[in-house]
Amino acid sequence: MRIENGLISVKFGGTSLSSAELITKVALCIKEFWDSGKAVIATVSAMGHETDRLLDLVKAVGSTDPREADRVLSTGEEVSAGLLAMALQAIGVPAKSYNACQLGLIATGQHGDGRFVKLKNPDLVRSFADQHVVVVTGFQGHCEETGDLIIMGRGSSDETSVVASAACGAEACYIYTDVDGVYAIDPRLVPNARRFDTIGYAEMLLLAYNGVGVLMDRCVGTAQKFGVTIKVLLSPSMGTSTGGSTVCFIKGDINNIEEDTSPIRGLAVMKNVGVVNISNVPNRRGQAAKIFKEITPNIVESNQGLGRTKASISMLVAEDSLSVVADQARKVKGVRVTSLGNLIKLTLVDQSMVNRSGALRRASACLSEVNVEFISSAQQLIVVAIKNEGDNLKKAATALAEEFDLVAN
Amino acid sequence: MRIENGLISVKFGGTSLSSAELITKVALCIKEFWDSGKAVIATVSAMGHETDRLLDLVKAVGSTDPREADRVLSTGEEVSAGLLAMALQAIGVPAKSYNACQLGLIATGQHGDGRFVKLKNPDLVRSFADQHVVVVTGFQGHCEETGDLIIMGRGSSDETSVVASAACGAEACYIYTDVDGVYAIDPRLVPNARRFDTIGYAEMLLLAYNGVGVLMDRCVGTAQKFGVTIKVLLSPSMGTSTGGSTVCFIKGDINNIEEDTSPIRGLAVMKNVGVVNISNVPNRRGQAAKIFKEITPNIVESNQGLGRTKASISMLVAEDSLSVVADQARKVKGVRVTSLGNLIKLTLVDQSMVNRSGALRRASACLSEVNVEFISSAQQLIVVAIKNEGDNLKKAATALAEEFDLVAN
Repeated sequence: MRIENGLISVKFGGTSLSSAELITKVALCIKEFWDSGKAVIATVSAMGHETDRLLDLVKAVGSTDPREADRVLSTGEEVSAGLLAMALQAIGVPAKSYNACQLGLIATGQHGDGRFVKLKNPDLVRSFADQHVVVVTGFQGHCEETGDLIIMGRGSSDETSVVASAACGAEACYIYTDVDGVYAIDPRLVPNARRFDTIGYAEMLLLAYNGVGVLMDRCVGTAQKFGVTIKVLLSPSMGTSTGGSTVCFIKGDINNIEEDTSPIRGLAVMKNVGVVNISNVPNRRGQAAKIFKEITPNIVESNQGLGRTKASISMLVAEDSLSVVADQARKVKGVRVTSLGNLIKLTLVDQSMVNRSGALRRASACLSEVNVEFISSAQQLIVVAIKNEGDNLKKAATALAEEFDLVAN
Repeated sequence: MRIENGLISVKFGGTSLSSAELITKVALCIKEFWDSGKAVIATVSAMGHETDRLLDLVKAVGSTDPREADRVLSTGEEVSAGLLAMALQAIGVPAKSYNACQLGLIATGQHGDGRFVKLKNPDLVRSFADQHVVVVTGFQGHCEETGDLIIMGRGSSDETSVVASAACGAEACYIYTDVDGVYAIDPRLVPNARRFDTIGYAEMLLLAYNGVGVLMDRCVGTAQKFGVTIKVLLSPSMGTSTGGSTVCFIKGDINNIEEDTSPIRGLAVMKNVGVVNISNVPNRRGQAAKIFKEITPNIVESNQGLGRTKASISMLVAEDSLSVVADQARKVKGVRVTSLGNLIKLTLVDQSMVNRSGALRRASACLSEVNVEFISSAQQLIVVAIKNEGDNLKKAATALAEEFDLVAN
């Protein structure tokens, strides 16, 4: 029985599947697992920019029915899945594709923003995988009550793969992507950035949540919850992986409790944010609540400062919500509102809440040395906003990477 | 061989050991583990207020040599350890006490604020535990280079017990304390607070870091790092435990991914904080760094708001640093500094970074409804500061506990 030799879950994104040629490369990669005697579940995204093309068609046609939109959008993954199964068959690997309804990938929530509930019958999926590569459409869920197909939220194909791994007891979930692992800081900004051989769930979750795009936060949160080991590897369409990174539970070495010299593990970058500053807020009960009531929930960070008689509230928001939030704030009587767009949010992510004293002071000092203005900060995580102009980002990233030991030795 | 039936690590705080009678109660509790055939390592704190008494003596004598001060302070644990071993012998349980030097509990760092490095010879400790209850002095470490005895930092007896558990492979670390487990919110504030049967390391770490005193943050961080399961139980001197709480790695149920209705798991309360507000800061490069350079590292939270030409920085600091930090800030030319003491910091702790949108809005609205003024906030964790006056804390805690489902059903 193949399943007794172990089950592997693999996931390929759209870029890895953007042509027939690349799909064949992916099939060859899967063939290696299959030839080693293991069972394989492969999750796929839509080819290249197919989802965007379908989205444009949906917009052009004049209705906004989310149920039917989901049906159209879901076809991208169906095409990838069928083609990958056929590419596998063409090189002698038995394979069958399945969508969310066929597999029982149960979801709940709104169309376009579903959430996984469970894989209904993991034993059935395991028995399929025992006989052939199971190719699964990512991005889809099946609502049991209505029978509807639901498109899942951002990053859901990665999560499909993690859910299948957890439910079917896969030994690991291989996520093939366009970078060869997880870096302490984006290697496009700091070329000698340190790559993690292994990284713990909690740190990876903070990196993902604060803008490191290599894995989506929901995928990491689900992996943490169910103890799924993720391997992040360079996709075969991009070249040959040199080892990638493993996201897993990391158990410390009790013979070396004090092993870490730097508590800061990574720097996450989020572009396209802005600040709305609300000042002249009377120090009266309920004023803050009144302001938050007016504002959309699209706040990245919110800080509040106190003067003797007046307070100020500073909100970091997504760039495209900036004018909306500022206008909402202006509706509150008597306050002064200013806003500033085109900022970049930098988040220093550490291993735990402990032992970070002085990091904010060090961060502000090293930004000052490279003449990057420091707009906003919060201590609990070290969050800094800077202006997106000139080579500010490059300078700041390099300075922080050096200060906090985020480059390779 | 006793050790083959499992090894248990137990820890008792000073209140549990404050009289000969209570020490005998503790011995009877240990006897139950011993009689079940298990090996036992027991870590103790100093009796009652003994450490305070010794500290007063140290202060009165006129020298500030930290090496000798550590020697004096460490004797409290030596007394407890010897007495507990004798109490065990008196009820027929073989027991021997050991201090950090005898066991090889290696530490580094400053006198009075050491950090554990390792337990030098865990096999030797296991062989002791095979023959008799090993009673260990908490609070102590042994510096290998100098041969000095070093007193460890805050909460270190709990950590001693966790380090011993990890190094010797104990099946669990039982920490006996003055509350019967971990509550979502202090039951003295909200009597029907929800008690956790089990709680994950990450949430417990956030609760501890933000002021839930039942376990110290360093102890939880060490347990997380080495995968030590902690059981928090009511001390035998306080009554009979009704089950306590287990702090451990929690693996989710894949058949119920979306099990949690409320993302908020607990409310941590930290009293004795104040705000220093620095306004009129020019929006010029390096100004923030200049201010942070002046300020002591004793900042709990720091937020920064931006006006068109002037910025403001708001810092949450420990009450006893309030005037020092304010004075330091006043040294910066041209800024305006105000401060406000006697605040309480409330931190809503959630399970993960995901799925919390709207929590800040909900928190501010529910505080407004109970007429509690809302001084400061940060979004990444939901942190709120309120004035410590009247029944503000009680009202706020009750409102938030109800809003975020922190009370028992």
